[in-house]
Amino acid sequence: MRATVIHAPGDIRVENRPEPEITAPTDAVIRTVATCVCGSDLWSYRGVMPVDEPQPIGHEYVGVVEEVGSEVSGVEPGQFVIGSFVASDNTCPVCRAGYHTSCQHAEWVTGCQAEYVRVPLSEGTLVAVPEQPTEELIPSLLALSDVMGTGWYAAKAAGVRPGATAVVVGDGAVGLCAVIAAKELGAERVIAMSRHESRQKLAREFGATDIITERGDEGVARVKELTDGTGADAVLECVGTQQSMQQALRSTRPGGNVGFVGMPHDVRIDGQELFFSHVGLRGGPAPVRACLPDLIHRVLSGRIDPGRVFDLTLPLDEVAEGYKAMDERRAIKTLLHP
Amino acid sequence: MRATVIHAPGDIRVENRPEPEITAPTDAVIRTVATCVCGSDLWSYRGVMPVDEPQPIGHEYVGVVEEVGSEVSGVEPGQFVIGSFVASDNTCPVCRAGYHTSCQHAEWVTGCQAEYVRVPLSEGTLVAVPEQPTEELIPSLLALSDVMGTGWYAAKAAGVRPGATAVVVGDGAVGLCAVIAAKELGAERVIAMSRHESRQKLAREFGATDIITERGDEGVARVKELTDGTGADAVLECVGTQQSMQQALRSTRPGGNVGFVGMPHDVRIDGQELFFSHVGLRGGPAPVRACLPDLIHRVLSGRIDPGRVFDLTLPLDEVAEGYKAMDERRAIKTLLHP
Repeated sequence: MRATVIHAPGDIRVENRPEPEITAPTDAVIRTVATCVCGSDLWSYRGVMPVDEPQPIGHEYVGVVEEVGSEVSGVEPGQFVIGSFVASDNTCPVCRAGYHTSCQHAEWVTGCQAEYVRVPLSEGTLVAVPEQPTEELIPSLLALSDVMGTGWYAAKAAGVRPGATAVVVGDGAVGLCAVIAAKELGAERVIAMSRHESRQKLAREFGATDIITERGDEGVARVKELTDGTGADAVLECVGTQQSMQQALRSTRPGGNVGFVGMPHDVRIDGQELFFSHVGLRGGPAPVRACLPDLIHRVLSGRIDPGRVFDLTLPLDEVAEGYKAMDERRAIKTLLHP
Repeated sequence: MRATVIHAPGDIRVENRPEPEITAPTDAVIRTVATCVCGSDLWSYRGVMPVDEPQPIGHEYVGVVEEVGSEVSGVEPGQFVIGSFVASDNTCPVCRAGYHTSCQHAEWVTGCQAEYVRVPLSEGTLVAVPEQPTEELIPSLLALSDVMGTGWYAAKAAGVRPGATAVVVGDGAVGLCAVIAAKELGAERVIAMSRHESRQKLAREFGATDIITERGDEGVARVKELTDGTGADAVLECVGTQQSMQQALRSTRPGGNVGFVGMPHDVRIDGQELFFSHVGLRGGPAPVRACLPDLIHRVLSGRIDPGRVFDLTLPLDEVAEGYKAMDERRAIKTLLHP
């Protein structure tokens, strides 16, 4: 099959590789209908995370079940399915508490920028869409496998409630989906921090009521101005740098919450500053599985349209250009058709 | 009046000082009925926090109102009152959200180990006890002005709910009060981490179901053993060191919460570790004012008896011995009678 392999920073290739096979009785193999490039894939593309040897890449997927292992009963060949980037059993105490990405049997799903994907713990990981979706719905369903689920978790972790003022730090695909999530969870005011005109526009269409272009201390000052000097109830941190984390913490009112989903790189939080801020903080890799049924329903019923974050669609063979366009910020997010 | 002054680390003296006066129309002056020494007073006593010049010390008090400023209407001379160590207006948006220690007009109350205390913003800060309490109730009411309120906030910030498993890190007066709070908020299992037999005994009497004597990684391993490998729902961090914070974070299950009330000294939290832990974190100086009415009711009705943390009672003139006994861990907490 055709599959994407990263050889070194900046070196993305499509190669012929063996099709995945069922290796455990709980596996499923799916034929990928659509996949995409994640902001987190850029960490290795940019050399921020090491690439020691060529490795298959990609962790977002929707597709049709081809084959299931002997112990799988909830998932059947022919079903159109979405899954998280972390396989989970959906039965352990951690999954039951809603934190599937910390499942006691968690496994990362990888190599998804390819024609076929093996999904471990498939019964606990995959959620079937009631019927075969139309072509137009594919991007929004694909977005649920990571970015929309992640934006949703950011909003939940930040405690967004009806009437709240929410701030979204980061205008990548996750940040834009976080705007959708804050709006859906009832935020009255959604302040998006963005410097890019096209992203500002999409943020507004997704429900942002205010845009702040300043960053750092100036950005914090602008949030305070917009909130009578108090700070926001909920801040959704969707970047993962020291600066973005500080900006998030300092934009939050005492007693408010930061939900952080930008994977932290060299982020240190000062205990005393956090103490005196009275801000609550929760982050992590989003337990996408927990919200998939709800989000699938919202997409199918037309309430949300997160697929609009894909502003570049390419055949899988042109995946290298998909990475390049995102790296150069010419594209928010690239959808790939195998 | 007689008042306690710290001159340098280890140098605590009682001196004659002028009685405090009403300086703002929102002030009250109270005659102290009882005051005490806080674990946080030991930071300067031990030289961990600098003492640049002689300064009055102490921030816990109960007493009788002597005089109020011209703008005070909710507090009257003759009332027996309890107040927080931070004065608050009780009307700003931050107070209305329940975070009085971050009040937009907050002022620290200090110099309370003395015969009289000036309390700023007295109407928003002081809560009157319905009638003059009996002698036996004084210690428990005094405990509400800081340690019991702080233990309560730790439990609230850690999200203790009925049926929860809670861990308390720290067996000082705050940690022991945190045991009471976890129990009162319905925790089914309360695990106290303590190495001191007398404190273990009190923790059990306050509601602890299990005692762990190990610290650090071994302590974490013991918590995991007691929770089927998952970790606790709620961890109440009542120390404030790097080790205690790490112990707290690593003892919590994914999706659980740490409430931290030990004032952090050189504590750094690694963003990536916090991220992958899925643990929620909130701390801060306890907004004691928010819970005073509830806690006064619990003391008066005999539900809780936090005054038992005072295992040494001295006249104010012997305050130096009160500090020494706590510093040498001969006493948990010293009550002072002016």
